[in-house]
Amino acid sequence: MQESTLIRLKKEIELEKPILIVGLPGVGLVGKLVAEHLVSELNAEKVFEVYSPHFPPQVLVNEDCTVRPVSNSIYLGKANEQDVLFLVGDHQSASSQGHYELCTLYLKLAAELGVSRIYTLGGYPTGKLVHENVVLGVANSLELIEEIKAYGVEFREAEPSGGIVGASGLLVAFSRLENLDAVCLMGMTPGYLMDPKSAQNLLGVVCQILGIEVDTTALEEKVKEMESVVEKLKEKEEMQKFQATRPSEEDLRYIG
Amino acid sequence: MQESTLIRLKKEIELEKPILIVGLPGVGLVGKLVAEHLVSELNAEKVFEVYSPHFPPQVLVNEDCTVRPVSNSIYLGKANEQDVLFLVGDHQSASSQGHYELCTLYLKLAAELGVSRIYTLGGYPTGKLVHENVVLGVANSLELIEEIKAYGVEFREAEPSGGIVGASGLLVAFSRLENLDAVCLMGMTPGYLMDPKSAQNLLGVVCQILGIEVDTTALEEKVKEMESVVEKLKEKEEMQKFQATRPSEEDLRYIG
Amino acid sequence: MQESTLIRLKKEIELEKPILIVGLPGVGLVGKLVAEHLVSELNAEKVFEVYSPHFPPQVLVNEDCTVRPVSNSIYLGKANEQDVLFLVGDHQSASSQGHYELCTLYLKLAAELGVSRIYTLGGYPTGKLVHENVVLGVANSLELIEEIKAYGVEFREAEPSGGIVGASGLLVAFSRLENLDAVCLMGMTPGYLMDPKSAQNLLGVVCQILGIEVDTTALEEKVKEMESVVEKLKEKEEMQKFQATRPSEEDLRYIG
Amino acid sequence: MQESTLIRLKKEIELEKPILIVGLPGVGLVGKLVAEHLVSELNAEKVFEVYSPHFPPQVLVNEDCTVRPVSNSIYLGKANEQDVLFLVGDHQSASSQGHYELCTLYLKLAAELGVSRIYTLGGYPTGKLVHENVVLGVANSLELIEEIKAYGVEFREAEPSGGIVGASGLLVAFSRLENLDAVCLMGMTPGYLMDPKSAQNLLGVVCQILGIEVDTTALEEKVKEMESVVEKLKEKEEMQKFQATRPSEEDLRYIG
Repeated sequence: MQESTLIRLKKEIELEKPILIVGLPGVGLVGKLVAEHLVSELNAEKVFEVYSPHFPPQVLVNEDCTVRPVSNSIYLGKANEQDVLFLVGDHQSASSQGHYELCTLYLKLAAELGVSRIYTLGGYPTGKLVHENVVLGVANSLELIEEIKAYGVEFREAEPSGGIVGASGLLVAFSRLENLDAVCLMGMTPGYLMDPKSAQNLLGVVCQILGIEVDTTALEEKVKEMESVVEKLKEKEEMQKFQATRPSEEDLRYIG
Repeated sequence: MQESTLIRLKKEIELEKPILIVGLPGVGLVGKLVAEHLVSELNAEKVFEVYSPHFPPQVLVNEDCTVRPVSNSIYLGKANEQDVLFLVGDHQSASSQGHYELCTLYLKLAAELGVSRIYTLGGYPTGKLVHENVVLGVANSLELIEEIKAYGVEFREAEPSGGIVGASGLLVAFSRLENLDAVCLMGMTPGYLMDPKSAQNLLGVVCQILGIEVDTTALEEKVKEMESVVEKLKEKEEMQKFQATRPSEEDLRYIG
Repeated sequence: MQESTLIRLKKEIELEKPILIVGLPGVGLVGKLVAEHLVSELNAEKVFEVYSPHFPPQVLVNEDCTVRPVSNSIYLGKANEQDVLFLVGDHQSASSQGHYELCTLYLKLAAELGVSRIYTLGGYPTGKLVHENVVLGVANSLELIEEIKAYGVEFREAEPSGGIVGASGLLVAFSRLENLDAVCLMGMTPGYLMDPKSAQNLLGVVCQILGIEVDTTALEEKVKEMESVVEKLKEKEEMQKFQATRPSEEDLRYIG
Repeated sequence: MQESTLIRLKKEIELEKPILIVGLPGVGLVGKLVAEHLVSELNAEKVFEVYSPHFPPQVLVNEDCTVRPVSNSIYLGKANEQDVLFLVGDHQSASSQGHYELCTLYLKLAAELGVSRIYTLGGYPTGKLVHENVVLGVANSLELIEEIKAYGVEFREAEPSGGIVGASGLLVAFSRLENLDAVCLMGMTPGYLMDPKSAQNLLGVVCQILGIEVDTTALEEKVKEMESVVEKLKEKEEMQKFQATRPSEEDLRYIG
C-alpha cells in the first residue's frame, strides 16, 4: 500500500444531498466522542473503510482477540429524514503529507456522493482547568457563519489565532475548492484529558442543527468516569504538595 | 530503488498449499530466533530476497569481509510433508510507510504462491524481569482462535492492549483482505534483551502446530550464553549498589 | 493532494518580460515584509495560488472567521511600466524534499511566463544585536553581480559561508538551468525577531532597482511597533539582572 | 524536482572499461579528500552533475559570490592509460530513502558506461586519538579480497562489525546485482575531525592500485593545518584541566 485506499463495503448507496459529519481523534477527543455517539445512537451503518500508509504502522486488538488495521470509517445514518454520513476513526495521519492526501480523498468522495455540507467537530484547547460551556466555530463562507451563529455557536475574530491543525481544519478550508459548504465546530476544553463534558455540550449544538434529540446516557456516564479520574489526580497532587512541604523519611536519612 | 523490490532466486517453485511463518526482528528477537532456528534445522532453501529503500541505508559485513545489503529473505522448507515458507530478515522497515509497503508486497506474494495460512512470530514485552512460560495469541478469525487454543496458546481479552506494532501485526490484520487465515504467536519476554528462552518456548508451540520435532541444541546454547550475560549484568549491578552505600575514594577526596 | 498544485486564478495573463520578486517567510521576515509591502503599495493582483502537501497540515483563520489553507501566492503588479510578479506566502516547505519540488514548480512557471529575471529577498542573520544598514547579495552570474553592486549592495567573498537555506537560495542557484538571471538580496538583521527596519533598508534598494518610489508609512509603523517590543524586552532583562545580583526572598527562605 | 536528476555535461564520452572511484563526504572526510585530490592532480574533467531532492535544501556560495546547488559530480581522468571516473560531492543524501535512490542511479550509470570495477573510499572511525597507518577493506567477492590484500589493505573478520552506512557501503553491496566488482577502502581515523593524514595513507594505497604517482603537497599542507588545529585544541584542554584542579575566582566568591 503506497497510497491511502478506500474500501467500498456496499455495492451501491443512494443518497439524497447527504451531509457529512467528521469526528476524528483530536484535542480532548471531543469531536470523536460526539460523532461516535451519534453513529451509535442513530444506528448508522458502516459503508466505507479507509486504510493508509500514513496511519501508524500498527494494529488494534479487539476484545475477542481478533485484530484490525488502524482505519478511518464512514457510516451512513438518518437524522430527521436527512441522510448523514459520519467520518470517524482510530487515528489521524501520522505524517504531514498524509493529512493532505487523506483530506483530498475525503473531499473527492464527498463530491462524488453529492454531499451538500460538511461539519467537522473538534476541541478548542483553552489551557485553563475550568470548563467553559462554549462552542466555537469557523466556516468557509460568511453566509454559513451567520446561519450557524443562530445555534449559539460563537465566532471570535481571527480565532483560533494559531490556526487549526489536522483534518478538521483542512477539510473546511479545501471544501471551497469543491464548492462545498463547510463549518468546523469546536467544543472548548482544557485540552489535557478526554473531555466528554465538552463533547456533551457540542453534541447539544449538533443535535439542534440536525433537528433531532438523542439519548445522552452513554456520554453522561463517561463524564462521571472522567470526573472520578480527575478527582483521583487532584488527590494525588494534593498529597505530593503536602509531602513537598516537609522532609521525607528518605531525606531525613541522608541529612541525619 | 524507489520501491521495495522482490528478487526471485529460482525460476519456478511448485508449492502445495504452503504455510508462511514470519519471524522478523522485534521484541526480544523472539520471532527471529524461532524462525531462523527452523530455517536451519529444516535445511530450508532461500527462494526470494527483498531489498527496500525503507530499510536502514547501510550494509552488513560477513565474516569473510564480503558485504551484503540489508534484506529480508524467504526460505522454503518441508515440515511433515507440508511446504513451509519462512520470512526472516536483518531489519524491519525503518519508516512507518515502509511497513505498509512491505506488508502489501508480502501479502501479494503469499496470495500468488497459494499460501493457505500465515503464522507471524514475535515477543510480548511484560516489562517484568521474571520469565513466564506463556505464548500469547491474536488471530484474524474466531475459528482460528479456537483451533490455536488447543496448542496451549493463551488468548487474553483485548491484549496486547497497546496493539501490535510492525509486520507481525499488519500481516495478520491485512490477511483478511486477501482471504487468508493468519495468527500471531507471541512469546512472553521481559523484552529488554535477546530472549532465547522465550524463543525455546514459542518454538515448542510452533513445532506442535507443524507436527514435527527439531533439535534445539543451538537454541539451548544461546539460552546459556544469555544466562551468563545476565549473571554478569547482575553482578555489576550488585557491585554498584554496594558502592553506593558508602562513599567512594573519590567522594572522600572531595569531602576531606 | 500528493504533489504541490498550482491554481490559475485568471484564464489568460499577458506579460511582457516580467520580473519575479520572491519574498517568502525567512530570517527576520525581512523578505516577506518587503514583498508584501510592494504588493500592497502597487495594488498588485493575485493571479496564482499554490497549495502543497509540503506545507504544514493546518489552516489559517481570517479575521471574519473564515479559513484558508496555508498557501503561497503570486501577485501581478506594474512598477515603472514594468510587469512585476510577486511570490509571497504563509510558509515555506516544511520538508527538505518539498523545497526542491516547490522550487522546480516556480522555475517552470517563471519560464512559461517569460520571466527575465528573479530577485529573491531575505534576511542575513548577523547574530549581533546592533542593526547594520547593509544589504548583502549573491547572484547566478558575474555580470549580474557587477550590475547590482551599483545599487550599493555588498558582495562579500564566499558569504554567507554557511550557504543559503530554502527558496531564496534554491531559486537563484537553479535559475541557471532555466537560463534565467537571478539575484538574492539579503537585509542584514540580528535575526531574532521580525525586523521591519532591515526590511525598510532592503525596500530602498529594491525600489532603486525598479526605478520607483513607494510610500513607506506602513513599514515605519511596524518599525516603531518593534522598537517598543524590544524596549519592553530590555526592561524585563534589566529587571532580571538586578534581581540576580541579590538573593531573592525565595532564596533567603531556603538559606535561613 | 521529485527524483534525483542526472545532468549530462558532454554529448558523448567514449570510455574503455573505466573504473569508478567514489569519494563522498563521510567519517573524517577521508574518502572525499583522497578523491578530490586525485581529481585535481589528474586534471580530471567534470562530465556529469547530479541534483537531488534528498540533498539538504540549501545552496553553496562560491568565492566570487555566485551560488551553486548542492550536488554530486562525476569527473573523468586518466591514470596510467586507464579511464578513471571520480564520483565526488558536497553532501550525501540527507534521507534514508535517498541513499537507496542515489545508489541505484549511480550503479545504472556505471553499468551504462561499462565500468569494470568500483572503489569506494571512506574513513573507519576507531574512536581512539592515536593515528594508525592502516587501510581496512571489504569487497563483494573473495577473489577481489585476495587481489587487494596484496596492496597492504587489511581485511579483518566481520569488520566493521556495525556495518557501513551510506554510499560507500551500498554501492559495494549492490554492485553484485549489476555484475560489477567493487571494493570499499577505509582509512583508519580517530573520526572526530577532518583527517588528511589518514587520507594521505589511503591515497598511497589507491595510487599503488592505479599504478601511478601523484604530487601530495596539497594534502601535506592540510595535514600541517590540522596538526596546528589539534595543537590549539589540546592547549585549550590543558588550560581547562589546570583550571579545574583549583577553585576559580568565581568559585571562591561563592564559597567565601
